[in-house]
Amino acid sequence: MTEQPMNGAESLVRALHGAGVEMCFANPGTSEMQFVDALGRTGLIRCVLGLAETVVAGAADGYARMTRKPAVTLLHLAPGFANAAANIHNARKARTPMVNLVGDHASRHLAYDAPLTADLDAAVAPFSDWVRRARSAAEIAHDGVAAVAAAAGRPGRIATLIAPGEAGWDPVPADFRPPAPVAPAGPRAVEDAAVARAAQMLDARAPAAIIAGGAVLEDPEAMALLRAAADKAGALFLAPGANRRIEHGAGRCAPRRIPYPVDQALALLRDVRRAVLIEAAPPVAFFAYPGKPSLILPPECEVLTLADFDQDGPAAARMLAERMGVRPAAPPRRRTPDAPAGGFISPDTLPAAIAAALPENAVVVDESITSGRKIFEGCAHAAPCSWLAITGGAIGIGPPLATGAALGAPDRPVVALQADGSAMYSIQALWTQAREGLNVTTVIFANRAYRILKGELMNVGANPGPQALNMLELDRPELGFVEIARGMGVPGRRVEDCAALTRAIADATREPGPFVIEAFMP
Amino acid sequence: MTEQPMNGAESLVRALHGAGVEMCFANPGTSEMQFVDALGRTGLIRCVLGLAETVVAGAADGYARMTRKPAVTLLHLAPGFANAAANIHNARKARTPMVNLVGDHASRHLAYDAPLTADLDAAVAPFSDWVRRARSAAEIAHDGVAAVAAAAGRPGRIATLIAPGEAGWDPVPADFRPPAPVAPAGPRAVEDAAVARAAQMLDARAPAAIIAGGAVLEDPEAMALLRAAADKAGALFLAPGANRRIEHGAGRCAPRRIPYPVDQALALLRDVRRAVLIEAAPPVAFFAYPGKPSLILPPECEVLTLADFDQDGPAAARMLAERMGVRPAAPPRRRTPDAPAGGFISPDTLPAAIAAALPENAVVVDESITSGRKIFEGCAHAAPCSWLAITGGAIGIGPPLATGAALGAPDRPVVALQADGSAMYSIQALWTQAREGLNVTTVIFANRAYRILKGELMNVGANPGPQALNMLELDRPELGFVEIARGMGVPGRRVEDCAALTRAIADATREPGPFVIEAFMP
Repeated sequence: MTEQPMNGAESLVRALHGAGVEMCFANPGTSEMQFVDALGRTGLIRCVLGLAETVVAGAADGYARMTRKPAVTLLHLAPGFANAAANIHNARKARTPMVNLVGDHASRHLAYDAPLTADLDAAVAPFSDWVRRARSAAEIAHDGVAAVAAAAGRPGRIATLIAPGEAGWDPVPADFRPPAPVAPAGPRAVEDAAVARAAQMLDARAPAAIIAGGAVLEDPEAMALLRAAADKAGALFLAPGANRRIEHGAGRCAPRRIPYPVDQALALLRDVRRAVLIEAAPPVAFFAYPGKPSLILPPECEVLTLADFDQDGPAAARMLAERMGVRPAAPPRRRTPDAPAGGFISPDTLPAAIAAALPENAVVVDESITSGRKIFEGCAHAAPCSWLAITGGAIGIGPPLATGAALGAPDRPVVALQADGSAMYSIQALWTQAREGLNVTTVIFANRAYRILKGELMNVGANPGPQALNMLELDRPELGFVEIARGMGVPGRRVEDCAALTRAIADATREPGPFVIEAFMP
Repeated sequence: MTEQPMNGAESLVRALHGAGVEMCFANPGTSEMQFVDALGRTGLIRCVLGLAETVVAGAADGYARMTRKPAVTLLHLAPGFANAAANIHNARKARTPMVNLVGDHASRHLAYDAPLTADLDAAVAPFSDWVRRARSAAEIAHDGVAAVAAAAGRPGRIATLIAPGEAGWDPVPADFRPPAPVAPAGPRAVEDAAVARAAQMLDARAPAAIIAGGAVLEDPEAMALLRAAADKAGALFLAPGANRRIEHGAGRCAPRRIPYPVDQALALLRDVRRAVLIEAAPPVAFFAYPGKPSLILPPECEVLTLADFDQDGPAAARMLAERMGVRPAAPPRRRTPDAPAGGFISPDTLPAAIAAALPENAVVVDESITSGRKIFEGCAHAAPCSWLAITGGAIGIGPPLATGAALGAPDRPVVALQADGSAMYSIQALWTQAREGLNVTTVIFANRAYRILKGELMNVGANPGPQALNMLELDRPELGFVEIARGMGVPGRRVEDCAALTRAIADATREPGPFVIEAFMP
């Protein structure tokens, strides 16, 4: 074989690797073949295949949540990006760093309305924080380094680089020089005045809340300090309802999450008159409903943003604790779980069953929706774990997120708590789990309905008849998740009571490789 | 129960029904609950649930291809639309009429960046021909009628109506009147001068081609006339590579499709010097490749558009035939198929095996990609059928398209020719087939690779190593389609030789309900 001159694709792969990218999640097509070739030839970046783009994006999110480093996705034109967009949306709301490399037709081809031609720039924009179209093989490596810097700054961003065919397959010019490293933007400094004001607000003379998200929830010490500050002030210590990652379980001081049901959220915050926000926005209802407010804090509540999303929440927590003179609170001690109780699996029995089963240092991926609303609180005294949730409300994040998390934390067992309706959006991820031999135990809560929507139907004032309810039922036919999993190379079993569920999770997490547990909910 | 005043959602459902919409494909969320309620209460429009939005959009496409009427899709905010967008893209390239009803947050809620908030208007625009945001409950019924008219005009269009919460749940005003019907735009007249010029061009003094698409391919008489015109002129009679629907098989004169491989397409059209286009654009390569042209016709070829996409192709065919003094050509006669041969299933043995198996008046859904390139030609003498293909290059159309086609043509058996990699994009459609009891026989060509991409890797000049090829293989683990189907309530079997395949298709199409045949390709 004669040596080929380096083309744009290879220059990009080398530049991405130089900028710290170690993982590529891919579902490539013809317009990405030069990148597949360059990734394969250089061997610098690990490539993991997903059978649909929603798997690719969700896995990139899960990987970055565990490693705090962006993966690159490889996507095929506008339809490929669109297939990934729902989980890109989830990642964006999580402020997860991600670099999307989207192949496009060669520029000269775009005039002719080929079958796959669409307005790719317009299609990626609504789901990206940073977009660039590579102009040539000479520049695409520089574009890639800029994309990584944009993604990896504070807060994490979605950076999308569009690569027309010729930017990948043309040779780089003779005078090409690899791009210099670009440092991502660090966090903006927390202001002393804001710290002083927050401490004043938390003087216990009015009911208050500390609402913390983002990096605070990934930092056990920061949470322990804020718990102590809240205790001193007699304030609530809260987190948004859904978060990128919370260090949870015994030994951690995770805050209470604001409940999803709007009436519960309003009741919790009804009396709050002062709110200090750290990497969090003023809480908003997940949806609007007739006759109910959008914002959850009372209108008369004074709100201070101590640290915004581009600032360092853990630093803010330390500064506030120092100003208030508090030391870290004592976290919940580990409790030997009760012997797993038998009986039907239900939202009320699940917390104890899961808490008893969680292995040491697990990564919990939570897309349990209605079935699992009480599990997080129920695990406060269980083995320490990292808790990853659906952040943008676009269902189908669970199986891909678990896949990526397992690749990002290969030494930790992953337990995915998974609603059945949501699972069917991205069940293809099981195949990648089998292919990569990942220790992911997926527990599917089979209630055979879009259960959450039955409640929502009431919330808009409907008085639904059988035809409407029929659109929210998944029981005709019943989904056989054990068979579906087996068809993708993943073993599984079905359990019908809580004791069997606890044992099955404990068994599966001890074994290498993926496993699916269908938890029948009567 | 007291009578509720009509809300915007109900006014819209009644207006859509009045405008001729009879089918709704849905994967609703909270922001669509008022429409679910109104659809259920009125019972005017049949509702079919898909487990993922790509199923919803592909099914709406298949339904419209068979009925020539738009279905309405019910989609959930920007992520829901994005999940549907790849198959909306395919429908758009097919010029299939479709009305998308996309729920959005209530307008007052959009300021607060709730988890599911995104720029919905920007997200739908790149995949829609017509977009409107409903402004109120008073207007949404009128918006719906306008959307149907936009979709159902000539050519068919993608019309997307964004419905903020209050436009659905607010009551209509006391003076509300249902909207008057709006007639869709009919086809623009074909010009006599163009007909005369086309007849001149086809005077046999230079090598010529008639390239016809769209409605021509749905009209056996128009095809027979163009076949006769082409024969008289010694011209090629061609169709684009992928089409909404072709009436095919014995008794029809379907044109040859321009091949997907660019070198074959260039060779076929190399000598053409005059081309007459009817509901077709100048043919373009599916992708651009280094050193190969984008346009397939030679630069020196004279090109005339006899009928554009907004004109009446079958009328143009009739006018041209009259001007040229030709009568319909004799179509291929039906041939008794050979007894099905045994032996391995391969791209070369499949045409005879499928042709022998096709039942009377089947609907064939063709997403067979590399395995099936010769099947269409091989069925010219088989039982008459309608042939539906992937039109926009976004894979994953097959299972949903077959689902919708079966609902649009409930008395006809559907045979889906399905590549394995593409099947995994939207395999969830099998569940809808089981739920609705549809007679769809899906034949999955299990070559366990993105086979087409291996060729494309060579086309960009790559010399791929094992790491690159690994990203195009689906054999580790092997996908068990019979098990996956069973898990969604669809029975199936695996076959390993051609005779068994023929028998299995014939058996399955005779039985009601869906069936999956995994055709192992060594």
